[in-house]
Formats: sequence, C-alpha cells, structure tokens
Amino acid sequence: MPAPVDLAAKFALFDDHWHPRIVGELNGQLVKLAKGLGELPMHHHADEDEMFLIHRGTLELHFADGSQVTIGAGQFYVVPRGVDHRPVARGECEIVLFEPASTAHTGNVTAPQTRAALSHI
Amino acid sequence: MPAPVDLAAKFALFDDHWHPRIVGELNGQLVKLAKGLGELPMHHHADEDEMFLIHRGTLELHFADGSQVTIGAGQFYVVPRGVDHRPVARGECEIVLFEPASTAHTGNVTAPQTRAALSHI
Repeated sequence: MPAPVDLAAKFALFDDHWHPRIVGELNGQLVKLAKGLGELPMHHHADEDEMFLIHRGTLELHFADGSQVTIGAGQFYVVPRGVDHRPVARGECEIVLFEPASTAHTGNVTAPQTRAALSHI
Repeated sequence: MPAPVDLAAKFALFDDHWHPRIVGELNGQLVKLAKGLGELPMHHHADEDEMFLIHRGTLELHFADGSQVTIGAGQFYVVPRGVDHRPVARGECEIVLFEPASTAHTGNVTAPQTRAALSHI
C-alpha cells in the first residue's frame, strides 16, 4: 500500500505562490496544495464548486458585492460555482484545494499567475 | 456569505464514535467529520474512493492482505473503490472524510455502528 500523504512534507517541496500541485485524486476530484501570498484577480468557475481548506496562515476571499470571508488554519470554505471571488493572502498561507479535475486554475480569467498544466508531487 | 467552517469547533459538537456528520457539500461530494475509537469491520465501497484526512490522533487502516497504514494528524490516505479496509483507532482520533454523496457508511457490510442517514452539523 502507498504511504499516507503528509501535508507538511508536501508543502515543504515547493515555495512559489499561487501554483497548485496535485497530491491526490479520487472520484474525479483532485486534492491540490498551493501557497498564497499577495492576490489573484477576481474570477469564477462556471461549473465547479471549489473548496479552500487552510493548513497554515490566513486566506481572505473577496466577493463581487464587496463582502469577504477570512479563512484561518483549520477552517474551510466552499465557493459555489459561478460565484466571483478574489483570493488575498496578506502573509504566506498554505491552502488545500478540493475541486473537480476539470477545474481551471483562475476560472474565467487568465492572469500572469495562471497555470495551464499542474504537476503531481 | 456564510462563515468558514471551523473543524475544531465542529468536532466539539459531538462525542460519539464512528458516527459521521456532514459539514460541507460540493460537486456531489460530501465533507464529513467522524471521531473514531476502537474499530469498524472490514468493508469496501464498490463504486467510491474514500479519503481519510486525520485532524487529531492516529487512524490505522488494515487491509485484507494483512498490510496496514497508519495515518497521523495532518496526513491523508485515499482508499480506492473496491479495496477492503478495516479502520482501527487505538486512541480517539478525529477524521475528515471526503467521498461522494452516494457513499454508504460501512460499504458492503452492516455493523452495529452502521448509520443509514447522516445529519448536517
């Protein structure tokens, strides 16, 4: 049997920001890890809900209506499909993402940080 | 916008074992929390992969070939569909589960601990 996946050990393998890596796959869904610092542009995913589970630090999600949520370590938030959101990390944070394998990185927009193909680690 | 889900706060809401509660739903998948102590019978899920992410403590998964994995806090393991597994918790552990909404609690077997309907918390 393969060994369990250790989140801290996987996060230690990379240090760039807003560049998700794939660490698991099940039922057509991917488990991805990303580090955040700074922000991504406002975007949405038309057909996929997206789950952000914070492993370390804090992530803000800003919404189109001006509201926001702050997600701390040990907390998660599900952004429903179609909902515009802008991730903001004022300090470095570590994010565990759960989303369908079909989910594009920055949804309906392309940004300098957009990654077309993601690697497994 | 709803508040983020705090895992520790949700785990504090119940204290029985092997009784999963639903805390999130996305893309037809459920996020469930369960506390484990003791063991469940060997079982499998014919059509669903099952992810165990350990929040606190340690969970062992024993397989039909006699092998086992030990999953610690901050680690996860995906049991592929069809693979017989027996969860064993020698001390109390807190488990975050990700699996399709269709997944039956103890898969192909019914045990005293089996729950037919799960509640949201």
